[in-house]
Amino acid sequence: MSLMWSVKVVGLGVVALSLSLELLGWVFGRCRRRRTVNRVLFFPSKVACVEHFSCFCPLPHGEETSFSCLLRHILSASSSLDLCVFSFSNMDLSRAVLLLHSKGVTIRVLSDKHYSAITGSQIGVLRKAGVCVRCDAGSVYMHHKFAVVDGRQLITGSLNWTLTAVQSNMENIIITEEAELVQPFIKEFNQIWALNDPAQ
Amino acid sequence: MSLMWSVKVVGLGVVALSLSLELLGWVFGRCRRRRTVNRVLFFPSKVACVEHFSCFCPLPHGEETSFSCLLRHILSASSSLDLCVFSFSNMDLSRAVLLLHSKGVTIRVLSDKHYSAITGSQIGVLRKAGVCVRCDAGSVYMHHKFAVVDGRQLITGSLNWTLTAVQSNMENIIITEEAELVQPFIKEFNQIWALNDPAQ
Repeated sequence: MSLMWSVKVVGLGVVALSLSLELLGWVFGRCRRRRTVNRVLFFPSKVACVEHFSCFCPLPHGEETSFSCLLRHILSASSSLDLCVFSFSNMDLSRAVLLLHSKGVTIRVLSDKHYSAITGSQIGVLRKAGVCVRCDAGSVYMHHKFAVVDGRQLITGSLNWTLTAVQSNMENIIITEEAELVQPFIKEFNQIWALNDPAQ
Repeated sequence: MSLMWSVKVVGLGVVALSLSLELLGWVFGRCRRRRTVNRVLFFPSKVACVEHFSCFCPLPHGEETSFSCLLRHILSASSSLDLCVFSFSNMDLSRAVLLLHSKGVTIRVLSDKHYSAITGSQIGVLRKAGVCVRCDAGSVYMHHKFAVVDGRQLITGSLNWTLTAVQSNMENIIITEEAELVQPFIKEFNQIWALNDPAQ
């Protein structure tokens, strides 16, 4: 093989190698972008304190539990939180919603009319604090228990936002960013929200 | 440019093209294999007859509703159905489970001890028909409402397997084959199943 022929083959090989590396980078980049959150939490959650500072209660501190993970995902909201929940009496979750509200996150809460009036319900507390709340009276039960964070992340499952559900029952929560799962819930929320517009 | 040089360039071009086509085929093949079921059903379902033959009832026939879709996914089980549901009194769903049992599909049913004894519960009916049933008495409520079809497809949400849930309440069901969501539920089922082994 002549010297010039060898040079051509080596040159073309280098070009092919660099193109392959670029292609591989693009494929891996796409795979990484496609990586969406998909996780499952089970309850009852281990009981632990969810305060981060200045707490001297006897509960364990700084532990990662199903409940602390749920709280973290809710508190990650930076622009909006749409919450559609049958029963809402858990005070830690209520404080989380109020904290987001105080930070300017747009909150919309839908609940069941019958359950929003029971003792311990946080629906009245939220309404008094200025959170937009609507209650559904059209169906036997508005039995959903889901939240959409920033129009992107769906939190849904069997878990009502109560202390019993978190600490005593066997329950599940799915946290997902799969658009095929998130988008129908956003549509459903907007429909129920519009249906229960008090101006109508 | 000499003739021989042109031949080499064309030859290398053809090789590069065929390799690119093979690579594209592989990438598309992977994308197609990654296409998993991800759908959401909302309730209340429109009321329609779910019989396919010989039915003269006044309900609409042959309509695609949330409930007929749910039934179809359950009846698609060919090897196993693991069902973990708080309240089970819907007779159509009970008939679906009995049909699968009669076809030799391996059925395991977990339910809540308190709710399995209420009037209309289908848990006793399934047990009498020879379906493997275990009831959880360890937690305040075994509040899950999920099923795993053939160890591959997860059906989960807010919907209990009751007539009110299907026809009157606002409820949701997710049907997914995302392994990150399905596998934790399979593990959870096996744990609760083992915990409630009557031989223990």
